[in-house]
Amino acid sequence: MREVRKEELMNMFHTQAPISRYFGMRMSFSEDGSAIVELPYNPNLDHALGGIHGGVYATMLDTAGWFTVAVARGDSSWVVTSEITVRYLEPVEKMSLRAIGKLIRQGKRQDVAEMHLIDERDRLVGHATGAFMVIPQNPMTAKDETG
Amino acid sequence: MREVRKEELMNMFHTQAPISRYFGMRMSFSEDGSAIVELPYNPNLDHALGGIHGGVYATMLDTAGWFTVAVARGDSSWVVTSEITVRYLEPVEKMSLRAIGKLIRQGKRQDVAEMHLIDERDRLVGHATGAFMVIPQNPMTAKDETG
Amino acid sequence: MREVRKEELMNMFHTQAPISRYFGMRMSFSEDGSAIVELPYNPNLDHALGGIHGGVYATMLDTAGWFTVAVARGDSSWVVTSEITVRYLEPVEKMSLRAIGKLIRQGKRQDVAEMHLIDERDRLVGHATGAFMVIPQNPMTAKDETG
Amino acid sequence: MREVRKEELMNMFHTQAPISRYFGMRMSFSEDGSAIVELPYNPNLDHALGGIHGGVYATMLDTAGWFTVAVARGDSSWVVTSEITVRYLEPVEKMSLRAIGKLIRQGKRQDVAEMHLIDERDRLVGHATGAFMVIPQNPMTAKDETG
Repeated sequence: MREVRKEELMNMFHTQAPISRYFGMRMSFSEDGSAIVELPYNPNLDHALGGIHGGVYATMLDTAGWFTVAVARGDSSWVVTSEITVRYLEPVEKMSLRAIGKLIRQGKRQDVAEMHLIDERDRLVGHATGAFMVIPQNPMTAKDETG
Repeated sequence: MREVRKEELMNMFHTQAPISRYFGMRMSFSEDGSAIVELPYNPNLDHALGGIHGGVYATMLDTAGWFTVAVARGDSSWVVTSEITVRYLEPVEKMSLRAIGKLIRQGKRQDVAEMHLIDERDRLVGHATGAFMVIPQNPMTAKDETG
Repeated sequence: MREVRKEELMNMFHTQAPISRYFGMRMSFSEDGSAIVELPYNPNLDHALGGIHGGVYATMLDTAGWFTVAVARGDSSWVVTSEITVRYLEPVEKMSLRAIGKLIRQGKRQDVAEMHLIDERDRLVGHATGAFMVIPQNPMTAKDETG
Repeated sequence: MREVRKEELMNMFHTQAPISRYFGMRMSFSEDGSAIVELPYNPNLDHALGGIHGGVYATMLDTAGWFTVAVARGDSSWVVTSEITVRYLEPVEKMSLRAIGKLIRQGKRQDVAEMHLIDERDRLVGHATGAFMVIPQNPMTAKDETG
């Protein structure tokens, strides 16, 4: 059941989200439902001093959190990211990155997740927590929703 | 003096930051030193449901905050984004966006800025505050620094 | 109409909230609906080095944000603080403090406010933004609600 | 060595911090260095609807994070709370609370910690992460410092 949901969400991300291809992100789930977002080094996403832009950290952390929360909900409800607090711990240059989500709490109105960003040397380079509002609706109409 | 600094930073962003071209972002400064980041609609940055990905909000808000803080410092010191809290207020589809920075406080060790994200109908669609650590160093070596 | 609501909320805070008396906080509203929380210096709230504890900053900023959001809603709905990001800008010793709320955005499911903390020399010593979830319910039952 | 530091910090909190007595907070450390802040129910800290005020959550979470970071540093440097993001997950009434800190990352200029707030039924009722700036100075002069 949850395996079906994982497949649906992975498929949605890889085939329907233009940003996944444009960045080069791949998403999968661990057995216990943590979303893992991987990004091989993409020089188009560097900032002016040759490091990977902080916006890439935020994008990966947000994505890992959202999918971790979404897969835990099943398909009867939907979530939208409401807020994310991103901490930039280490600068990174010319490296692949991996963001991993972890569900902190599932609630009636909002879920909370924690996300870690790891570089290819296994250093913790970014950290985030996020709040995701629950929308009791079909995903296909959810895009018109506001938080 | 500060006008020279503005030109240097704009030039740095537009000619040396690959992400500015890849997203299609342009950056300028208001008279009073607020950085303004503009992004025409780029379909490559959409999420799976056809809206603009939250990571784009975060990238633009972070960039507007960083440049607002950097121009206020002059060229004798440097800043790195330490943390950013991003609030997603409204979803946006197929629209240009504009992020505007505002300096909240300049400190000895860190600066704080507030950032607004506005869509082409002038709605407030995102909000952020960020902390930017001060690094007393030449920009060209600053890239090896850690927060 | 809104004046009545202001009176109700002020009365509620001063007569029913034990923490208001225990800290020594007083709350009022500006004409445009910003909640203002004032606290004369209370030595019981100092930390070990003689400054005012950061928890006092957070308490005052949270309170100013909550009442600003609550008065703007009128009495047909209720809000609970969902998350608050507090920035400690300056340490303060033996001084009165004043927190002021400002509504950033009113939404269907949550409101966002910004709060400033000012010391008696008019320095900005703390800053916060917060998210407040809307609960479509009578206040008297709202206390059993969860976010 | 670290045991000595633990004793010093516990002693500092219990004998020199007026707020610890005023709230009724006790602080200790786990073997691995997590600060644990405990608070028996204190009706003076309730809000108007009979629950424990959010400012108490923030105070306990901030304290648990600060002491966790401080004990890990030893006595040659000092830290000040720079920012804390507090999430209110569940309301609590008439219960003791326990906040627990966890070091996420130790850096050159700032440390990051995560904190959990647990009620007497072992529910997770609050969560926070915080940034703590490092100040290379003797604690006794640190109180005049600004972030």
